[in-house]
Formats: sequence, C-alpha cells, structure tokens
Amino acid sequence: MSKNLPFDEKKLREIAGKYPTPFHIYDEAGIRKTAKALNACFDWSENYINYFAVKATPNPYIMSILKEEGMGADASSLPELLLSEAAGLSGEQIMFTSNNTPPEEYKKAYELGAVINLDDISQIEVLHQTLGGKFPELISFRYNPGPDRVTDKGNVIGNPQDAKYGVTTEQLPEAYAKARSLGAKRFGLHTMVISNERKEEGHIQTAEMLFEMAVKLKQEKDIRIETVNFGGGLGIPYKPDEQPIDLDKLKEGIKNKYEEIVVKNGLEPIRIVTENGRFVTGPNGYLVTTVRSLKHTYHDFAGVDATMADLMRPGMYSAYHHLTVPGKEGTPTKPQRVTGSLCENNDIFTGPSDRLLPELAVGDLVVIHDTGAHGHAMGFNYNGKLRHSELLLKEDGSIQQIRRSETVADYFKTLDFPGLNSA
Amino acid sequence: MSKNLPFDEKKLREIAGKYPTPFHIYDEAGIRKTAKALNACFDWSENYINYFAVKATPNPYIMSILKEEGMGADASSLPELLLSEAAGLSGEQIMFTSNNTPPEEYKKAYELGAVINLDDISQIEVLHQTLGGKFPELISFRYNPGPDRVTDKGNVIGNPQDAKYGVTTEQLPEAYAKARSLGAKRFGLHTMVISNERKEEGHIQTAEMLFEMAVKLKQEKDIRIETVNFGGGLGIPYKPDEQPIDLDKLKEGIKNKYEEIVVKNGLEPIRIVTENGRFVTGPNGYLVTTVRSLKHTYHDFAGVDATMADLMRPGMYSAYHHLTVPGKEGTPTKPQRVTGSLCENNDIFTGPSDRLLPELAVGDLVVIHDTGAHGHAMGFNYNGKLRHSELLLKEDGSIQQIRRSETVADYFKTLDFPGLNSA
Repeated sequence: MSKNLPFDEKKLREIAGKYPTPFHIYDEAGIRKTAKALNACFDWSENYINYFAVKATPNPYIMSILKEEGMGADASSLPELLLSEAAGLSGEQIMFTSNNTPPEEYKKAYELGAVINLDDISQIEVLHQTLGGKFPELISFRYNPGPDRVTDKGNVIGNPQDAKYGVTTEQLPEAYAKARSLGAKRFGLHTMVISNERKEEGHIQTAEMLFEMAVKLKQEKDIRIETVNFGGGLGIPYKPDEQPIDLDKLKEGIKNKYEEIVVKNGLEPIRIVTENGRFVTGPNGYLVTTVRSLKHTYHDFAGVDATMADLMRPGMYSAYHHLTVPGKEGTPTKPQRVTGSLCENNDIFTGPSDRLLPELAVGDLVVIHDTGAHGHAMGFNYNGKLRHSELLLKEDGSIQQIRRSETVADYFKTLDFPGLNSA
Repeated sequence: MSKNLPFDEKKLREIAGKYPTPFHIYDEAGIRKTAKALNACFDWSENYINYFAVKATPNPYIMSILKEEGMGADASSLPELLLSEAAGLSGEQIMFTSNNTPPEEYKKAYELGAVINLDDISQIEVLHQTLGGKFPELISFRYNPGPDRVTDKGNVIGNPQDAKYGVTTEQLPEAYAKARSLGAKRFGLHTMVISNERKEEGHIQTAEMLFEMAVKLKQEKDIRIETVNFGGGLGIPYKPDEQPIDLDKLKEGIKNKYEEIVVKNGLEPIRIVTENGRFVTGPNGYLVTTVRSLKHTYHDFAGVDATMADLMRPGMYSAYHHLTVPGKEGTPTKPQRVTGSLCENNDIFTGPSDRLLPELAVGDLVVIHDTGAHGHAMGFNYNGKLRHSELLLKEDGSIQQIRRSETVADYFKTLDFPGLNSA
C-alpha cells in the first residue's frame, strides 16, 4: 500500500539541494482542496466557519492561506491569539477556548473581539472581574457531557467524565443565565469530546447532543443558542489502508439531525461552526529527512537527520506515520527501523518494531507522511536537539521557507552564562 | 506520607515574591550532598568519575557545581558539548555518547579531547573519515548485550535486543580490533541498559556483565579495557513510600564482583565511571507553581500556572510526582486533580486520577517534587505555552536566577512575519 506525494524524487532533490533536510513541507494546493471540501460539508449552514485549531500548525503563513479559504482561528493562548491577529483575523473570526486561563489572555481575546468560550462556570465571574466589570455581548460555553455521553460510538477522548474540560450538564443552564445577568445577549455552545475519529457516527452523535442541548436551553431557560461548535476531531487516515471520513455521509447525517431536532422543535436557525486542525493540514504536510547512517545489530537500523524533536507522535504515542522513499517505490523491501539521533529509545519513526521498507542507503531521502498537524508544533529541545524549518510548496510549484531552523544560539537564548552567547 | 523540602512556606513566599511562579528551583546543598554520596560509593576505584548526564539538567550553573564536586559531563549533542565546555570541563572530563551522529559533533568532541563512545561498529570508519584520517588514542564502545542480558533482574530499558543503541556481543571484539588498527591505544567499555532502578541487584549485574566482557576482550583479543562505564540508571524514589537505593549495598556488591572477576582473572586495574543524571539532580529540584483557579465539575480541579511545558513526565509517561502545599501540611485532605492550562487532556500533574491533597485555594503555592532531572529539560512550546525560569537556592540561602523564562518574542523567534516581532 502506498500514499501519494505532491512531489517526485527529482523535485524533492531540487528542494533539498536548496533547503537542507530535515524540514517540514506543506502542500498549499492540498490544504486549499481540503479546506474547500470541509467548507462544502457545511455549506447548508449559513455563515459556517471552521476555526482552524492553531495548536496543530501555529504558522501564520498557513493560517493566512486558510483565511483566504474562509477559515478562522481556534486559539488557546496569548501567542496563538497574536498569531491569529498577525494572520489578519479579527473579531468573531477568532474563537478563544482555554482552561484555567491567565487574565492577560482574556484581556487580549476581548480586545480582539474574539468569541470567548468559557471552560467553567466559575470563569464567568473571573472574566467579569478581569474586564473591569465589562462582559462580552457574545459568550460561549464548553460543554462536558460527563456520564451523559455514550462512549460506545466514536473515539471519545478518554472518558468525558474524567476530563478537566468544560461545564457539566447540570451547571450549563445556570451558566448561561448567569452570563445573561452580566450583560451577555448572544450565546454559543461548544464541545470537544472526540479526537481523530474517521467514523461519521461519532461526529453525528456530537451534533445530536448539542442540538438537543440547544432545545433544552431554549425551553428551560429561554436561552437562544445562535451558534453550536462541534469542536474538532475529524480524523485522517495515517495508514495507507485506512479509509478517510466520508464527508457526504457526515453532511447528510448532521443535516438530518438538524431537521429532526432544531427545525422540528421550532428553534430559530442555529449556525454551525467547527474547529478542526488535523483534518485540514495533517495530510498536507510531510517531514523530509535524509539517511545519515546504517546500522546492523539485532535489527537493521537507518539513522536519519530528523529526530523526535521534529515529530513527537511516534515516540510519545507510538503513532503510525507512513514512510515513503521517493525513487525507490516498488523496489524490494526488507524489515528496517528508522531512527533519529536523540538519546532516547523511543526516537524511532517506525515505532518500536520493524517495518517493510525499500532497502535504505546513506543519502536516501525519506518522506514521513501526515506531519502537517501536531508535527513541528509539538517539538522539544530535549538532549540539545534543534527543531527544523518549515517550507511551503506553493500552488505554482515554487518553494517558500515559512519558518527557519533553530540555531545553537536559539537553544542558549534563556541562559546568561560566559562563553555561551557566541556559540 | 510526606517528602522533605529545603524551604518552608515563608521562605518560598519570599522567593515567589521576587521571582514569579512558575519556576524550577534547585537545592545546591542537596546536589552537593548527593554528589558526595555517589562519589563515596566508588571511592575504592581510582579516579572514579560520574559523567553527569547533561540531558537531565542542561544548565551550566548546575554543571559548574557538579564540576566542583568532581563530576564530568556525559554529552550527546553539539549544544551539550558546548555546555560542557562553558562549564569549564575539558578533555576526559567529558564523555561523548551519541548515536547516528552528525559529523560536526564528532569534530567538536575530538577538538575538546572528550572520550568518544561509539555506538556502532560502522562508526569507526565514519569517525576516521570525519577526522580526516586521524583517530582518537582513547576510544570507547557502547555495548548492547541483546539477548545475552537477563531481563528478570532490574528495570532493563525495554528489551536491549530491541534498542537502537550499541554494538552487539558478536561485533564487540572486532570493533576494538578495528579501532586498534586505526591507531587507538586505550580502550573503554560502556553500556546503558537500565533506567531509574532502585534495586541494587540490576546495577550489580551490569557491573558483572562489563567486568566479564573486559576479561573476554583481554583473553580473546588482548584488548585491555582501562575504563568501564556502567551508564546511568540509579533510580530515585518519586513516591514518598519508596525506598532509595542503598549505596552501601551497591558498593559492596560491585566491589565483590570486581574482586571475583577482574582481580581473580589477573587483569590490570580497571577504572570505574558512571553517567548518572537523575540520581544527582532529580530529588534536588522542585517545580513551584501557584493555584490560579478552582473548578468543581465531575471532579475537583485546581488549575495552576505551570503546564506540561514545564514538566512533561506526568503527561508523557503518567509518571508520579509528589505534591506538597507548604503551610497546609497536616490539614485535612480531599481528592483533587491539579492541572495546567495547556489544551491537552494529559496536562494534569496528578495524573489522570484523583489525589488526596490539602484543600487547595487560589493563591496557594504548590511544590512538585523531584523535577531536578528531565523536568525543565523536556519542555516544549505546544499550544503556545512558554517554558519558565530556573532558580538556584544557594548554600547560603540566597537565590540566583540561572535561567530566565521564555518570552512571547522567543516563541516567535524562528518566524519572519509582519506583526510578530514587536510582540
């Protein structure tokens, strides 16, 4: 089984000749195509917007492309708010979802006019005080269904009841009433209980849950929910034999729930929004690395110039990322392991077992797929390893460097010690 | 059960008044005491040295204290070599252990006169070429015993046979012979197969394995191993009811193996070295954080101002770190969870379950124990979270900031995008 690449070996060698490996490279055409497909899935909901989850790929060049495709930003920290602002987003194009929030982040979100999504009922008063007695006209709450969410459908993130996030079923009506008493006039309802799920059913169930809650809030507290935010969680196929989510089926399923619940109960129209990150950029980014060394011990290892500082998911979660060796597609394979140079056992891109790959040689370029989300973003500097650059493969085939690699001087930046600053 | 602290609430409030939380604070007196205890464990071996594993706590102020206690550095990357150099270490005070090594790191290690510890037989030729035909007089090899290491004694890191590290039992004699043919005259033998192990037995078994290999290399290839490096792996008690390693028992056990194997076989004296990091600094560092918010949903949560960007171990490994609330010792406890503000479910310092703690209030200082190793070092910037400062509690009770906190400008440093540099 194989996965497609937006470049061949010749093109990749040309790029690597100018920008040394390792690097992440993002496919602008792929990102735009994916964004359009997601938008089409919700074209029946007026003013639908996907707030791109900034933490997936916090690069303002990518965020600017997504803005052109009509997307906003889901920000959770001050740097993410500043990235959203730099990318040209403002007001309700930004959704600020945070927990245990520092005051300066509420202030910045309010200043930008972002939709503030409160994580807890206690934060109503905190926000009110932080803003010096003011309160946003539009307020949203993150709903945590706890034991009310049936967990046998879809890949619920852990057990909602155990999660630190959100307002409980019991607290939610009180939360809206309290916010209204402080001046809020427009209301949103948000949840995020599912992650990287490719089955449509779990997402449809989330829609159902939120639509029903909107009916309940209207009937019990006369709160009109004007926007529901399904959160993110649309999954992508990391393995070549996995099926992508069927967006037509998803569209149909959610539309039906909307008709059955929102329309039939006579509610005013509810706008749908989402905050997918991985789905949009994940499959459209690649980590490109060069084989530096070969080793034959109890297994056959190929050492590459990228490390888990560039991609944590295999080491942290034993997550599968597909590998392609451009130019060696279709050649005989043998069991090998592909490792970085970080001094940790789990710095292995193939995970802790052999994988059938074309026989690797020093100098081969290896492409690690689906690193467009939670790839560069999660990197660390453990063991003195540096994080590398990000490139954009533009629609016209040209390359733009959209983030430079870290230097040794960057690594030492928070130290004030003789002999380290000239490094 | 409780754990001791080198400060009381009053002192800690005084420190936090000057240096805002969160911060890591290291106890100089504790570090020196631990270093002396470790040195005493091997005082029977002439010129024993512990090469402090830099990746545990890559701070040159800490490394300088350890240098005063007679320790060297175990470096695995260019930045770690530069830190060692800045801390005033040189020559054989530095051990360079790396895998899949970039050429510039070999060059720097050679230039410093560091002991180079090769990870693979193929690296002999790579090193020789990288140094333009020169070769170090002293060379060490990392030994991976594979299936020859009995894994039922001690906490072997995974299965040695699966690890990416080291030279096999079969390759090892050939590796030394080859290095000798290129000009090496002095030989070291290294392994690292055990991690955070508090039982003495596993460490004694490692010593036995290396002493026996030294005999074999002498008898079969006339290679005289002048230094054996047991690696690191001396464990520490993270939980208050765990027993620390018994250094007297360890000393006795290793001495006996030395007598039985090295002395009885008529070998010349072998110098012992180690490369412990966690054992030295781990228990002598603390992450101090302030409660920012309280939340009562399906559980009781206290949100603090530190995040998993400051300490990854609970989130990454579900590792236990003890918490103390200075000033509330001995007060009634209740089940609570202590969380950061990073937008990840696993950003919980108590792990994914309740812990009995004194009832927390906003403004309480919470001390997270045993963060002196693999604490600040492993931090990332995911979700736009910044890493915080490191302080040194000096022997005279004064405080020195030995690393500043990251700023938003640091976070944006690798981006060149309008509007982000003035942030």
